[in-house]
Amino acid sequence: MILAVTLNAALDVTYTVHRLDRHTSHRVREVTARAGGKGVNVARVLSSLGHEVLATGLFGGPDGERLRADLAAAGIPDGFLEVTGQTRRTVTVVDGDATVFNEPGPMITAEEWVRFEDAYVARLQDARAVALCGSLPPGVPPDAYARLAATARAAGIPVVLDTSGDALLRGLAGRPQVVKPNAAELDEVLPGAGIDAAASHLRERGADAVVVSLGAEGLHAVTGDGVWSARPPQEVRGNPTGAGDAVVAGIAVGLAESAPWPELLVNAVALGAAAVLAPLAGDVDPHAYQRFAALVRPERENLHATDTHR
Amino acid sequence: MILAVTLNAALDVTYTVHRLDRHTSHRVREVTARAGGKGVNVARVLSSLGHEVLATGLFGGPDGERLRADLAAAGIPDGFLEVTGQTRRTVTVVDGDATVFNEPGPMITAEEWVRFEDAYVARLQDARAVALCGSLPPGVPPDAYARLAATARAAGIPVVLDTSGDALLRGLAGRPQVVKPNAAELDEVLPGAGIDAAASHLRERGADAVVVSLGAEGLHAVTGDGVWSARPPQEVRGNPTGAGDAVVAGIAVGLAESAPWPELLVNAVALGAAAVLAPLAGDVDPHAYQRFAALVRPERENLHATDTHR
Repeated sequence: MILAVTLNAALDVTYTVHRLDRHTSHRVREVTARAGGKGVNVARVLSSLGHEVLATGLFGGPDGERLRADLAAAGIPDGFLEVTGQTRRTVTVVDGDATVFNEPGPMITAEEWVRFEDAYVARLQDARAVALCGSLPPGVPPDAYARLAATARAAGIPVVLDTSGDALLRGLAGRPQVVKPNAAELDEVLPGAGIDAAASHLRERGADAVVVSLGAEGLHAVTGDGVWSARPPQEVRGNPTGAGDAVVAGIAVGLAESAPWPELLVNAVALGAAAVLAPLAGDVDPHAYQRFAALVRPERENLHATDTHR
Repeated sequence: MILAVTLNAALDVTYTVHRLDRHTSHRVREVTARAGGKGVNVARVLSSLGHEVLATGLFGGPDGERLRADLAAAGIPDGFLEVTGQTRRTVTVVDGDATVFNEPGPMITAEEWVRFEDAYVARLQDARAVALCGSLPPGVPPDAYARLAATARAAGIPVVLDTSGDALLRGLAGRPQVVKPNAAELDEVLPGAGIDAAASHLRERGADAVVVSLGAEGLHAVTGDGVWSARPPQEVRGNPTGAGDAVVAGIAVGLAESAPWPELLVNAVALGAAAVLAPLAGDVDPHAYQRFAALVRPERENLHATDTHR
């Protein structure tokens, strides 16, 4: 199976309002809630495509129970470990477009972290690839992703890491096979460097390959086997939330199957585009995915001439 | 004791953010939660002043349990009745000023409502006054407040009703002793009529008296014993959320003690002003309350000359 790790999973709550006006009071018309967090979305995409997956991470409190119940309802196997803190919520206020509020997450104790690492090692036995996704909750060691990536690498299991900021920079020391920042996340860790220079920097610090998601422009991969670009075959309109998670799901499948870069990128970019067409994060339009995958043509680039290709 | 009824109680959650920007993503710096809803705030004010109070209403689910635990922690006796739906949340996003999102509340079944009415009748045995506060959750009969007010009146117990819109208009049929709209709520039920004409209309439809809260202008009471105004003795700056609930607490005390209008209004306006000085809804600054109460001078007005007095 593919192991999808979400250390700071959330109950994703959506409020529908007529129009968000700052510093006023709003009647919420509709409230919906579902299991969320980047790795949970990855698990959802993988499960819907028929891949064996195990969603794991940390949960606590009533919202943690609701998260697990929602995973169970979706038929997604769950190896989440209970902690004393409360699973956080994200609140997305929708008035046509989305305004998002992300709670920081529960405080994790040292003992809970040790228990998670032990459980993670046990889960690796059956894993063909690992996706490490999202922010770190308070209390977790800042090099958490480096530790988890290094453990997987020592066991011969490939890792894709999708996080940002300090968690990303420190995670590189664990030598993940792939990191998947978007352009803004890349610019945050190396401001003004440009995509190729920043990606090369992340590779120097430990990542085997860097796959940058560029929204409508598709993916740009800087790898040990050259630089590749893969664009969606057509413009897609819809909900981009979760598209990056679908890309990570595609990368994880490619890593699990030791796919060559062109094949991995075709699936990843097609999944990302198909996710934009689905209304909820973590869902993909399966027909669009198949159609897009048949049409994507990845291109190999000369690192020093990338500007002329885009 | 004074019975404070909150049919649509809430867990009031506050998110502190740097700055709310529409259609962007926000990192929440701090999350706090406490028992909320107008009647819960009324109970909190009454309890902090040393009055015997019982908070009642409907609760359900984990957030309902948190609400009750918070009441218990504050030493407020609780007669809330459990329902199968989940207690709602309100989310207030604070970036200096407040942006509020009010969830609609749980669906209440007919059987649950009947059980509540029975429990309410039993609670009335020990009640000296009743405060009926806030919105109605879905499923509750639209004339809920008329029924509860009429039951109390038949038992000889005075009622103050603080709600808005249809729940207010239909509640008048139960002949509450006092209704306490603010200027906006009054204008909503009788647009453009002006405060005195709208208040007179509410009296014609069943309320013995109408106490209009006018923010910094204080209170304007249209009663069977004349028209009264009471202004705070000084300008107060702070958090106006919950000031109306403190006014209702003051009215409930006045009704319980059969206080004459000047005394009732002095306490209500002083509590409202003292609540503005306290940072959280449902709290009052007790020293400011005493100081203000000693300084407020209510004025009796000629109904046809109120404009010259303000």
